Amino acid sequence: MDLSWLVWTAGLIAVLFALYLIRDVMRRDSGTPAMQDIAGRILEGAVAFLRRQYRTIAILAVVAAVAVGAVVGLLGGERGLEAYGITGIGIAWRTALAFLAGALCSGISGVIGMYISVKSNLRCAAAAAKGGLSEAVTVAIRGGAVSGFLIVALSLLGVAGIYYMYGGNPEVTPHLIIGFGFGASFVALFAQLGGGIYTKAADMGADLVGKVEAGIPEDDPRNAAVIADLVGDNVGDCAGRGADLFESTAAENIGAMILGITLYLATGNAAWVLFPLVVRAFGILASIVGIMFVRGKDNESPMNALNRGYFTAVGLSIIGIFIANQTIGGDLWLFGAGVIGILTSVAMVFITQYYTEFRYKPVQEIANASRTGAATNIVSGTAVGLETAMPTAITIGAALLLSYWMGGQTGIAGGAVFGTAAATMGMLMTCPFILAMDTFGPITDNANGVIEMAGVGGKVRKITDRLDAVGNTTKALTKGYALASAGLAAFLLFEAYLERVAFLRGETEMMAVDLSRIEVFVGGLLAVALVYFFSAVAIKAVGRTASKIIEEVRRQFKADPGILAGTSRPDYARAVDITAAAGLREMIFPGLLPVLSPIVLGVFLKLTGYDSAMAIAGFLMVGTIGGIMMAAYLNNSGGAWDNAKKYIETGEMLEKDGSPVLKHTVTHAATVVGDTVGDPFKDTAGPSIHVLIKLLSTITLVLAPLFI
Amino acid sequence: MDLSWLVWTAGLIAVLFALYLIRDVMRRDSGTPAMQDIAGRILEGAVAFLRRQYRTIAILAVVAAVAVGAVVGLLGGERGLEAYGITGIGIAWRTALAFLAGALCSGISGVIGMYISVKSNLRCAAAAAKGGLSEAVTVAIRGGAVSGFLIVALSLLGVAGIYYMYGGNPEVTPHLIIGFGFGASFVALFAQLGGGIYTKAADMGADLVGKVEAGIPEDDPRNAAVIADLVGDNVGDCAGRGADLFESTAAENIGAMILGITLYLATGNAAWVLFPLVVRAFGILASIVGIMFVRGKDNESPMNALNRGYFTAVGLSIIGIFIANQTIGGDLWLFGAGVIGILTSVAMVFITQYYTEFRYKPVQEIANASRTGAATNIVSGTAVGLETAMPTAITIGAALLLSYWMGGQTGIAGGAVFGTAAATMGMLMTCPFILAMDTFGPITDNANGVIEMAGVGGKVRKITDRLDAVGNTTKALTKGYALASAGLAAFLLFEAYLERVAFLRGETEMMAVDLSRIEVFVGGLLAVALVYFFSAVAIKAVGRTASKIIEEVRRQFKADPGILAGTSRPDYARAVDITAAAGLREMIFPGLLPVLSPIVLGVFLKLTGYDSAMAIAGFLMVGTIGGIMMAAYLNNSGGAWDNAKKYIETGEMLEKDGSPVLKHTVTHAATVVGDTVGDPFKDTAGPSIHVLIKLLSTITLVLAPLFI
Repeated sequence: MDLSWLVWTAGLIAVLFALYLIRDVMRRDSGTPAMQDIAGRILEGAVAFLRRQYRTIAILAVVAAVAVGAVVGLLGGERGLEAYGITGIGIAWRTALAFLAGALCSGISGVIGMYISVKSNLRCAAAAAKGGLSEAVTVAIRGGAVSGFLIVALSLLGVAGIYYMYGGNPEVTPHLIIGFGFGASFVALFAQLGGGIYTKAADMGADLVGKVEAGIPEDDPRNAAVIADLVGDNVGDCAGRGADLFESTAAENIGAMILGITLYLATGNAAWVLFPLVVRAFGILASIVGIMFVRGKDNESPMNALNRGYFTAVGLSIIGIFIANQTIGGDLWLFGAGVIGILTSVAMVFITQYYTEFRYKPVQEIANASRTGAATNIVSGTAVGLETAMPTAITIGAALLLSYWMGGQTGIAGGAVFGTAAATMGMLMTCPFILAMDTFGPITDNANGVIEMAGVGGKVRKITDRLDAVGNTTKALTKGYALASAGLAAFLLFEAYLERVAFLRGETEMMAVDLSRIEVFVGGLLAVALVYFFSAVAIKAVGRTASKIIEEVRRQFKADPGILAGTSRPDYARAVDITAAAGLREMIFPGLLPVLSPIVLGVFLKLTGYDSAMAIAGFLMVGTIGGIMMAAYLNNSGGAWDNAKKYIETGEMLEKDGSPVLKHTVTHAATVVGDTVGDPFKDTAGPSIHVLIKLLSTITLVLAPLFI
Repeated sequence: MDLSWLVWTAGLIAVLFALYLIRDVMRRDSGTPAMQDIAGRILEGAVAFLRRQYRTIAILAVVAAVAVGAVVGLLGGERGLEAYGITGIGIAWRTALAFLAGALCSGISGVIGMYISVKSNLRCAAAAAKGGLSEAVTVAIRGGAVSGFLIVALSLLGVAGIYYMYGGNPEVTPHLIIGFGFGASFVALFAQLGGGIYTKAADMGADLVGKVEAGIPEDDPRNAAVIADLVGDNVGDCAGRGADLFESTAAENIGAMILGITLYLATGNAAWVLFPLVVRAFGILASIVGIMFVRGKDNESPMNALNRGYFTAVGLSIIGIFIANQTIGGDLWLFGAGVIGILTSVAMVFITQYYTEFRYKPVQEIANASRTGAATNIVSGTAVGLETAMPTAITIGAALLLSYWMGGQTGIAGGAVFGTAAATMGMLMTCPFILAMDTFGPITDNANGVIEMAGVGGKVRKITDRLDAVGNTTKALTKGYALASAGLAAFLLFEAYLERVAFLRGETEMMAVDLSRIEVFVGGLLAVALVYFFSAVAIKAVGRTASKIIEEVRRQFKADPGILAGTSRPDYARAVDITAAAGLREMIFPGLLPVLSPIVLGVFLKLTGYDSAMAIAGFLMVGTIGGIMMAAYLNNSGGAWDNAKKYIETGEMLEKDGSPVLKHTVTHAATVVGDTVGDPFKDTAGPSIHVLIKLLSTITLVLAPLFI
């Protein structure tokens, strides 16, 4: 049975649901004028930043679209595709247009995520101010869900739309729409980098100059960088992650569709090409029910409410993929592979919780090591971060081996690889819910900031502090999820690349990627070096941008002593502006690095007579492995350091005599150092590597003609 | 012309030269009784540690030898080797015996390195006390050279001896002696781990409880951990690195010999199998001349004297490899490949200098970042360390591609791969000199400690401080060298593995290692995870051991207030003992990890029907890439942090007003944090990864029958 109508329906339902949520959030109380004033400044700063950022990105994207179109048009036309009557020019404009469409959708996703989250944080703060923890939770998750559903709908409708626009021929069309994925990754990389650099530079700058130098508390209105810090949460966490997950779902979808071609050719059932879209349509429906299940209770941890909703979505997803598989006439083994993917996401959530929450041993060890100072805190946190690479690898490795084996049991040609695609699609089913949880983080973080800046203290602050701690956890969890999805998807994207190379060469057999060939080995080595170098550049960019902010805040303190006295207001807008300008400058180099590296290496190897297509495959695969491990290290050490500090600040960590460890002790100061170090790890470099991994996949997929 | 006599002659000359150096060092002034007393305690502690350590390692090695013999005997006998009339039992005892011989030689290398270095540091201190910088330099480099030459001689004579003992048949014998390399790596891993954990735990413990808690200077005799700290330099840096470089030269030699078989079969010239040994014989002669050229001058940086000697050795090595190549009748292209290897070592020395010396920008950036505290120091140092991955990868990658290409120009079958072997051998030629420079570090470090503890201050301390700073640099350089040699050798060791698999299977074609197969990809993923996890375990072990020492020093301070007052002596021996016991306990788990991981994974994949031999090849290759990059990060960030601190302590870093940055400022405190964090990075985890990489090569090479 053809279920493609479901794709459109689910996409539409997701949009309608998001509109319902927007109405629901917007009609709620928006707090006191003081709070509205602050939220207004945040919105203003965020819009100003995004406007500048997307102007830069738009220029880059148009240049890239033309270049990509030219390359595939000139090089890709004569081979595989001309059998279907598609000329070089035809490929060129279609790929360039798809690239621009992907780039545009990715950009829209970022803007939506940011805009709704700024609107929601004010309402979340207002709800908390009225004393309602449960309502604050509802506002935060619903505000987060708006961007979650819109982004997923956009990716689903975008891929399906361009597929049908380009003819909907299951044999060729997937090759023509890959530009969509590349465009999405391209924008996502810059969005994540620019936002990530901005947010952590503002955070570090505000902390170093405020908490450390001037001795004023976090989010204190006397600190000129404080609005920039709050803006940062929105442009980094919301806009950046929005663009990131948009491109994940888009790229993985297209990769899965390319693998579906093999199944279609083997079985004659064209539904396989659309199977990935149908699975995700069911995922949207499951996530909607899950979101409606999240209702905070005043006497319960908000995390429990989120977990209930999440497991509802997981359970319904399993049912959904069963139905999708049965209607299409799939083997039960493929359903099994899909379930593996869903369970992988659950496993990653648990692993991330274990390593980054202070209820468990790893974070407690870091906190204990902090008793002997900052050095032991850093050493201990580094060790915890490095350790997480192993459970991450085992989870992803086991999921791949299992889903591959299950896919192989179907006996269909290409079934084994399609098993890993089914697992990836299964994992992505709960993506809207995960995105909602992710955006929950910056919304509650900002609500906390609004409350602090508006001078509403006491009990209210307790509520938003509690929400903020939950937000930290959900942010860490979603990074674990994003990472596992990148790992799981990696394999299917490799296979898509190899299929495409074979298709372009007019061969029926996929080539082997022989690591024992020198160019493949060197390609792999350079790819891992790229991951390290990219991380270094991203981290350095944060430091350099932060120093610009520190200078500005110092200058303001010096120019007007009334600021520190609390009698005059600092110039927030100028601090926002300086951060934005510096952050955007710093985004260009690390952004171009992963785009240009494979091109330069591939062309060099081709010109020197090596097997460039194979070397680039090695570059892609080994680089992905290196990237997953590095991101696990950066994300988890950062999350663990953050919560080691929270362990003290919530009063749960005890001295030997049973009294709580106080703030401003040596131990607490050590955890503050760890938290500051972790900031660029977990919010700039780590998430940017997720995008880097997927960008490598999409760029090699699109530019395959260049390496042949 | 057969040059195998040169191998024996050069080995013998190296031994005689080492004996000459020993006599030269020992007949020098051994200082005041107070100094002798301290050196005596260091020797006692070091001997006690090594005795316990090697007892544990011996038990493990015997068990491993039996297991390895059994595995290859039972599984390897029927295939490739039986054509040569060698039965399963014959393979079993030969491999087990070779393993034990390698293990024994590796152990002896460690002991020699440690023993001579303790003897030399006293003489170096005495020379400095008499005001002679130049003589102190001569003593330190000659003391270091003793172990350098003995270790290289042992590896050369060991490999050659066992080769002839097992029949000297160029076609089969290399397969029988691979156990020698595995035995050497096995012991080296435990020696490096045990020593590395000991040395940094003692260092961190002594600093944290002394400098930070009690406020007494470094190497102050009131600190009970101070002798343990000095012992640590000897057992970690000398014994550990000695075992490490012994196994490098042995393993890479054997790998190169296996590749030589192909050339022998193609050309009928059996000299190719011995070519690697002959090249190294020339390297010994070149290094002897280089060492004799090192003469310190009182009015010149000791680094210049070392550099003169090094470049002399480099120049003579180029001539040596030319002669070796011409006499054997090799193509000039192979000489070119050898020169590439020699130049690679020079390039790595420059790269390491650039990133870890405070004359250059990276370390200065870290120092500047320290002005805003420990957090920015750590972030900046992390970025520098991560960045070094790129130049390292480019250097190794370029050397591999070039030497491979040059080898290919010879037109001989297997010539291309043999080109990388020639490069590796070229690089290893200066190994004795590099080892001497490496041991120079702990000798001067200890001389400094002896001077401080014996209460000889003032001008003398200035001399030893200067020597110590040079020692830090030489230690960093040798790590860069060791890493590049591991990287360069990696490729030849892979090929040796693939050749051996083909040989055992009775096939003439080597298999492809196809990364697009799921088991190969998952194998690679798990291998990189192993590198991360191993680093985490090693770093954690340092922290745990350090906390034991801190407790003990605190206990002693508390039990006898006379210690801090300076009226009674602390119980040094007890602190040494506790560190030793804790360090050795912590060495077992990380040591067994890389030994058991490939076995478990390989057997699991074999039992589940995957191509285990290919997956293990992926494990080996991707793991090597991941290891090289991780080690570059850990070594160089550690070295850079160390010298950012030295930048302040030498008075060369300036405040904005032009005055030097003082000790005990915020900036200096931040660099102390960075230095402490870097300690386990650069002296425990980093160097242990070098050994891990090579252990993975030797274990897979030996146990290949298990995966087929």
